[in-house]
Amino acid sequence: MITLAVDCMGGDHGPPVTLAACRKFLDRHADARLLLVGLPDSLRAFAHERAAVVPATEVVTMDDPIEVALRKKKDSSMRVAIQQVKDGAAAAAVSAGNTGALMAIARYLLKTLEGIDRPAIATQLPNAKGAATTVLDLGANVDCTAEHLLQFAVMGSALVSVLQGGEPTVGLLNIGEEAIKGSDTIKKAGELLRSAANSGDLRFQGNVEGNDIFKGTVDIVVCDGFVGNVALKASEGVAAMIVDGLKQEFARNIFTKLAAIVAYPVLRALMKRMDYRRYNGAALLGLRGLVFKSHGSADALAFEQALNRAYDAARNKLLDRVRAQIAHAAPLLLPVEPLESGAAAMTRS
Amino acid sequence: MITLAVDCMGGDHGPPVTLAACRKFLDRHADARLLLVGLPDSLRAFAHERAAVVPATEVVTMDDPIEVALRKKKDSSMRVAIQQVKDGAAAAAVSAGNTGALMAIARYLLKTLEGIDRPAIATQLPNAKGAATTVLDLGANVDCTAEHLLQFAVMGSALVSVLQGGEPTVGLLNIGEEAIKGSDTIKKAGELLRSAANSGDLRFQGNVEGNDIFKGTVDIVVCDGFVGNVALKASEGVAAMIVDGLKQEFARNIFTKLAAIVAYPVLRALMKRMDYRRYNGAALLGLRGLVFKSHGSADALAFEQALNRAYDAARNKLLDRVRAQIAHAAPLLLPVEPLESGAAAMTRS
Repeated sequence: MITLAVDCMGGDHGPPVTLAACRKFLDRHADARLLLVGLPDSLRAFAHERAAVVPATEVVTMDDPIEVALRKKKDSSMRVAIQQVKDGAAAAAVSAGNTGALMAIARYLLKTLEGIDRPAIATQLPNAKGAATTVLDLGANVDCTAEHLLQFAVMGSALVSVLQGGEPTVGLLNIGEEAIKGSDTIKKAGELLRSAANSGDLRFQGNVEGNDIFKGTVDIVVCDGFVGNVALKASEGVAAMIVDGLKQEFARNIFTKLAAIVAYPVLRALMKRMDYRRYNGAALLGLRGLVFKSHGSADALAFEQALNRAYDAARNKLLDRVRAQIAHAAPLLLPVEPLESGAAAMTRS
Repeated sequence: MITLAVDCMGGDHGPPVTLAACRKFLDRHADARLLLVGLPDSLRAFAHERAAVVPATEVVTMDDPIEVALRKKKDSSMRVAIQQVKDGAAAAAVSAGNTGALMAIARYLLKTLEGIDRPAIATQLPNAKGAATTVLDLGANVDCTAEHLLQFAVMGSALVSVLQGGEPTVGLLNIGEEAIKGSDTIKKAGELLRSAANSGDLRFQGNVEGNDIFKGTVDIVVCDGFVGNVALKASEGVAAMIVDGLKQEFARNIFTKLAAIVAYPVLRALMKRMDYRRYNGAALLGLRGLVFKSHGSADALAFEQALNRAYDAARNKLLDRVRAQIAHAAPLLLPVEPLESGAAAMTRS
């Protein structure tokens, strides 16, 4: 039996969406149990033999500053859900709430794994091969050292091998010939990744560029959280612009509207392939417990996908795998020289 | 009369494309003259009363390392074209060659403007408002200080006000709520930009995210070259994936192929709106002379657009405008505290 703790209050829609997803999820997974965390009044209507309500008196909003979520709302549904993981009552927690707050609370309660300085957020993006590219970090860390990027590569490899099988390939996000190729951090990260590949810890394929994420050149793309976040949002922006442009062009006049009717099934097939909901469920990696983040705007289908990913990760013992891969790569993860200024504040746990 | 120096050998296609574009350009601009720079044998066939061949004996290839382009090929078409600008024989130079080499040679020959530490590459991307967003830097600088980002904002504002008129708005590329909002550099850049806005030097609108580039939230988006390059390439990657996906879905069977015929005019209209060729012609800003960079893969239509942009910039005295705006913002551009390690190597010219 796999037990997940669900922050039912999180996200833009709260219980109407999260509970609908929970019901479908339970119907499809006979060996799953859910701990529904939230305000009891909001969850009263839900009844299922494999679900139990865990009460929480507060809710972290999308606008709450991290400090408020962490220090003031100590009985939030988000925090209580993660506490279930810490206490061993659940194998993973899922929330569609405020990402910054989720990461801060998860880190505070669960702590980072040995050998990991900073947790990372890993998500999947569709690629031209009809598969998904896993990208990390996506916003947890704005300044990363070469060591951090290596840690992200090791954790990302564990995630993808557990969820998709095989030995996934890794690329380091860099820029092309337009400049000196990358900063000192990126160059050093490249060296560390090559060493890891030589010791059999990773399948490092070298540098990749922004477009390689969507070409599917490698299974995993590693970058710092600032760059990853910008790349993700820029990509979403282009996709939205193209979809809006299609709608506008097809709505232009009676002829284009007729064309839209004819083309609709084809466009629908394309949209389905690129549907971000299929890729919902980002992993917070590097913690002593499994936490998955859903898009705040997720509908029931998308939120269910986040539950599925948490379930797969728990069932396939992602945490053990990450721990083992980190341990194996440990000699490389030790700092080879004193860390520079920006890294001085970090603590190894 | 506006004279442009054209590196006719640059780009993936060389003279067949560049010369075809030059001919069209001359036909459309009765007050323009071109200096066609390249191997005389390759340019012999071209004859026009407002064009003259300037011979060069070497060609910088797309693969040439910067040092080779800069130190070994001293008679390259790229370098000779920029030399025309330095000598005052041309008002601007245009090349579709290797970006890194072009920036290095331009910087070496022309030097940076007073008050500018580093030149930047500014390009336009289509946005949902049917206009263009100017983004800089796109790869000239991998590590930027807050001061550099302010300089980019000032130069970008001058570029857009000269080419499009009005007082353009500026946004600072940052990440959303997913983490502590931005690095120290970004926070400090935000402060500098706000000061500049208060002194009337800029119309700074605050932080923007990756998707705002394509929403058209602001006229100009400022970022470091690493982030800008990744955002640009990720965006190109998504667009390519969607276009390929459309082609695949429409080619699936006889019904979808018929739908494609019906939908073709609509899709064509959309492609035209998003056609990168309309936005070809990136400006190298911050130099004591105008240099424009065309996509290496540009066809004649795209290369002509780069020529048009160089022509507009020269005719509207972009260099004077940049110089004036830099001078006006000079008090802000002076370092307010000693520059950190990474910036120590920079020289003010």
